[in-house]
Amino acid sequence: MKVIIVGGVAGGASCAARLRRLDEKAEILMVERGPYVSYANCGLPYHVGGVIEKESSLLVATEATFREQFAIDVRTNCEVVGISAQKKTVELKNHATGEVTTEKYDKLVLSPGAAPIRPPLPGIDLPGIFSVRTVPDARDIREWIERGSSDSTGEHTSSGFPLDKTQRAVVVGGGYIGLEMAENLVHRGLEVTLVEMLDQVMLPLDPECARLVERHLEKHGVRLALNDAVAGFKQTASGSLEVLTKSGKAHPADIVILAIGVRPETGLAKMAGIEIGQRGGIRVDEQMHTSNPDIFAVGDAVEVKDFVTGEWSLIPLAGPANRQGRIAADVIAGRDSRFRGTQGTSVIGVFGATVATTGANEKLLIRLGQKDFEKVYLFPNSHAGYYPGAKTIVLKVIFRKSDGRLLGAQALGLDGVEKRIDALAMAIQMGATVYDLEEAELCYAPPFGSAKDPVNFAGMVPADVLRDDMPLCHWTSVDGQFLLDVRNPPELAVEQVPGALNIPLPELRARLGELPRDREILVICRSAQRAYYATRILLQNGFKARNLSGGMLSRSMLVAK
Amino acid sequence: MKVIIVGGVAGGASCAARLRRLDEKAEILMVERGPYVSYANCGLPYHVGGVIEKESSLLVATEATFREQFAIDVRTNCEVVGISAQKKTVELKNHATGEVTTEKYDKLVLSPGAAPIRPPLPGIDLPGIFSVRTVPDARDIREWIERGSSDSTGEHTSSGFPLDKTQRAVVVGGGYIGLEMAENLVHRGLEVTLVEMLDQVMLPLDPECARLVERHLEKHGVRLALNDAVAGFKQTASGSLEVLTKSGKAHPADIVILAIGVRPETGLAKMAGIEIGQRGGIRVDEQMHTSNPDIFAVGDAVEVKDFVTGEWSLIPLAGPANRQGRIAADVIAGRDSRFRGTQGTSVIGVFGATVATTGANEKLLIRLGQKDFEKVYLFPNSHAGYYPGAKTIVLKVIFRKSDGRLLGAQALGLDGVEKRIDALAMAIQMGATVYDLEEAELCYAPPFGSAKDPVNFAGMVPADVLRDDMPLCHWTSVDGQFLLDVRNPPELAVEQVPGALNIPLPELRARLGELPRDREILVICRSAQRAYYATRILLQNGFKARNLSGGMLSRSMLVAK
Repeated sequence: MKVIIVGGVAGGASCAARLRRLDEKAEILMVERGPYVSYANCGLPYHVGGVIEKESSLLVATEATFREQFAIDVRTNCEVVGISAQKKTVELKNHATGEVTTEKYDKLVLSPGAAPIRPPLPGIDLPGIFSVRTVPDARDIREWIERGSSDSTGEHTSSGFPLDKTQRAVVVGGGYIGLEMAENLVHRGLEVTLVEMLDQVMLPLDPECARLVERHLEKHGVRLALNDAVAGFKQTASGSLEVLTKSGKAHPADIVILAIGVRPETGLAKMAGIEIGQRGGIRVDEQMHTSNPDIFAVGDAVEVKDFVTGEWSLIPLAGPANRQGRIAADVIAGRDSRFRGTQGTSVIGVFGATVATTGANEKLLIRLGQKDFEKVYLFPNSHAGYYPGAKTIVLKVIFRKSDGRLLGAQALGLDGVEKRIDALAMAIQMGATVYDLEEAELCYAPPFGSAKDPVNFAGMVPADVLRDDMPLCHWTSVDGQFLLDVRNPPELAVEQVPGALNIPLPELRARLGELPRDREILVICRSAQRAYYATRILLQNGFKARNLSGGMLSRSMLVAK
Repeated sequence: MKVIIVGGVAGGASCAARLRRLDEKAEILMVERGPYVSYANCGLPYHVGGVIEKESSLLVATEATFREQFAIDVRTNCEVVGISAQKKTVELKNHATGEVTTEKYDKLVLSPGAAPIRPPLPGIDLPGIFSVRTVPDARDIREWIERGSSDSTGEHTSSGFPLDKTQRAVVVGGGYIGLEMAENLVHRGLEVTLVEMLDQVMLPLDPECARLVERHLEKHGVRLALNDAVAGFKQTASGSLEVLTKSGKAHPADIVILAIGVRPETGLAKMAGIEIGQRGGIRVDEQMHTSNPDIFAVGDAVEVKDFVTGEWSLIPLAGPANRQGRIAADVIAGRDSRFRGTQGTSVIGVFGATVATTGANEKLLIRLGQKDFEKVYLFPNSHAGYYPGAKTIVLKVIFRKSDGRLLGAQALGLDGVEKRIDALAMAIQMGATVYDLEEAELCYAPPFGSAKDPVNFAGMVPADVLRDDMPLCHWTSVDGQFLLDVRNPPELAVEQVPGALNIPLPELRARLGELPRDREILVICRSAQRAYYATRILLQNGFKARNLSGGMLSRSMLVAK
């Protein structure tokens, strides 16, 4: 059996190594268009930033590893320029020699990845405009930033900016790569402006959560230009660049990073005549078969089923790519492995904060027309509050109303964030409900968590809602109801909700007479905990009351100031 | 309805607050023998160590909180001195006034906790010997350590040690409290000896994992005296102490901390005539009913079902205590909540390292006579190896052979440890198999994890074993088999296995002729990854081969040097 694997990074490399382990006799040829196989593309922004100093650190496994350990024929700088699905052949072009050869396959695995989107805007090919996909990309960016820095005369460099002047970078796109690049460029001392077409960064987050990321970016010196698309690029007289936007702005730049997103590489798939899905990725089944039974596809180029919603989606993440490569190898070797879909679990570090998500977000559920869900906002401590260094975690939990099933979670904070999302990701994978989260038994000691972990709260609070112990309201639905603020007077001095009556929680039982029996009462406190206690008191005394989820803390996310 | 809750810390306090939320009308009386309710007993060692500087930080909720927010009648310094289950009354003694009163209850909740074991050894009541259970205990220890330190004359203090001399502490007991106290006393500059009767510290760990903790303690200056029980205590002529052991040793000490373990407080239960279980704790059902339907018990005083093994056990942890308090309140309020048992998930920080466990350990399974399990040793990186700061996690995973069900995990390391145990704890709770762990989708970005997370490896490697792709051997079963070491020559220079043939992995396919076909071959490398690849090559070439789990890294844990 001869297997040709196209693409030697995450999915392709995993597939090749796994296939060899399962089948010592198979002839395996792995071809990679670029100069390296199995490199750490997730590390590229950090290499630009100098956090990962050596380029060689990014080369996880070399051609030699694949040849010697796995007896795999690896060809780098080698591109597939033709596929005949009928003859079961591929044409390979060796970029070093220009030579084109034809190779027969029994099974073909496509792992071409996704290409950075590079819209045909005026000036997009000007020098100084980069994408971040490959090791050479990172090398080019580093060289561009460092250009002239060996010139110690203090003179202007050929590209026109003085060496003693801070360089200005414009990052286009506020997704993972864009944010990582922004951080790493700031880390290198550049002045960074981030231009994003949409009105929020980090699309996997709901906008009110993204808003917190945006504030954090601004706090660390990143200038944000949201809600404004790039119209083109211009070279100025001095040789530097300008990024022009639809709204008419011109952002000066010594370097531009394009991180608009990626598009599945489907050229080969189209060449092979296999089916492309509605989202523009290669359509595969659970076993990573394409529409042609002898051609498999894995990684960023394929559409996958969203584990939570069942929708086809494009989720270009390394974890799923690796698992898919493994599954394709299993199936080629005659096993019955199946890909279960992806939850889109992801994490990013930005200027000391961690932002992580898993499962469905609210935007997506609304877009799908789903109504059977509710959300809560929580603000638990990363660990016991009495132990030094506890940080607030902002946690949005989305769950099904009818059965309590956990649907998704988004978290942000300075500590302990991805740990909670990992536990919640495992919970979603296993079909857990919020009632299961209530009973979760997680690591607790004062430096690590609390006896009631944030993950427990992510169960208890939704369960209180579903058991009707705590009817919920959100700030976006406040509309003429009676507002009761149960905080203590010193807290009100900091920030007050206009029109709210203040009765501190300890006084509530004695002052019920001040509250209306003919109107719904919305209860407010800092984080919604005391408001929960108050809501219980009111409900049991015959009032109609709801808790404003997340209290003043979520108000600052949801209500524009 | 009148409910009396005995014990105002974790379980009792949770029960009281929850009950009020569910029933605004119930009369709730919470009595606490000590001076404080709802204090952070888990923080006591850190208060001794000065990490939590202010004693007031430990007081999570005060009597006033309970009175004002929850309308609960709280009585501190108030002990139950009599219970009549027939009359449904308790006799309360006010320690301040000496007065004894009788209170009727409809429902009684016992949350008396567990008392530090204080064996009747000679000299145990000498001054300078302390337990660590209450805020006053911590205060006494701090005062004892600081005694005379306001005396700046450099003279000997009244207790006999010179102020410029390092104080010597002996900690008796190598459990959680013992280790936390050892660390905190070292943190305060004391010289610490830890005496432990058993041959390992940290009983929830298997001994080979505990050995790594022991090395870490020693590296940070803690002297270990394992396998030696305390025989008694002596006061020396100079006024300091000596801890005498069964083996005849005398450990000098200026302070002694008793952390031998805890024993459920069952005095009240016996007074009430309710059933005590075989492990010495109060016997309760899933709804926290004792054998008397009007008496509930929660927290460290009760026996709980081990979630994994189904055995009755004593697991004095804060998380389960809180959940049990909540459940008892639910049931009293007429709801059908049930405690699902405990997994014994726990974590401890020791000198920068984190040690965490969940589920069953191997010792326990062996003691229960179970044979349907296997284990693997893994040594994954805490995050992508190419991103700076990755640390090795030592991970032991125990799983059922017949169906792949995850049974337990133990992990140690400097980073990312409790995060993996939390995900695995959630997996165990949800009945996950190692096949589920293979497909887990967790947070990945270079600073946080790897595309294949340690949790994925905790599934993949066991699944390889269960699918017979990788027959496994453990170092403790090496017995005359042929040993093949596939590491590279430079690695052998560091440490070699006597009698092993070295064929570096890249040369293996060409040198198969050097290997015996009539003997089983055990394959060795550093962490068992290359040995896995080699095992696959050997098996597919008709050899009988097994991988030595954990390679040289587990050898150093399992084979005494």
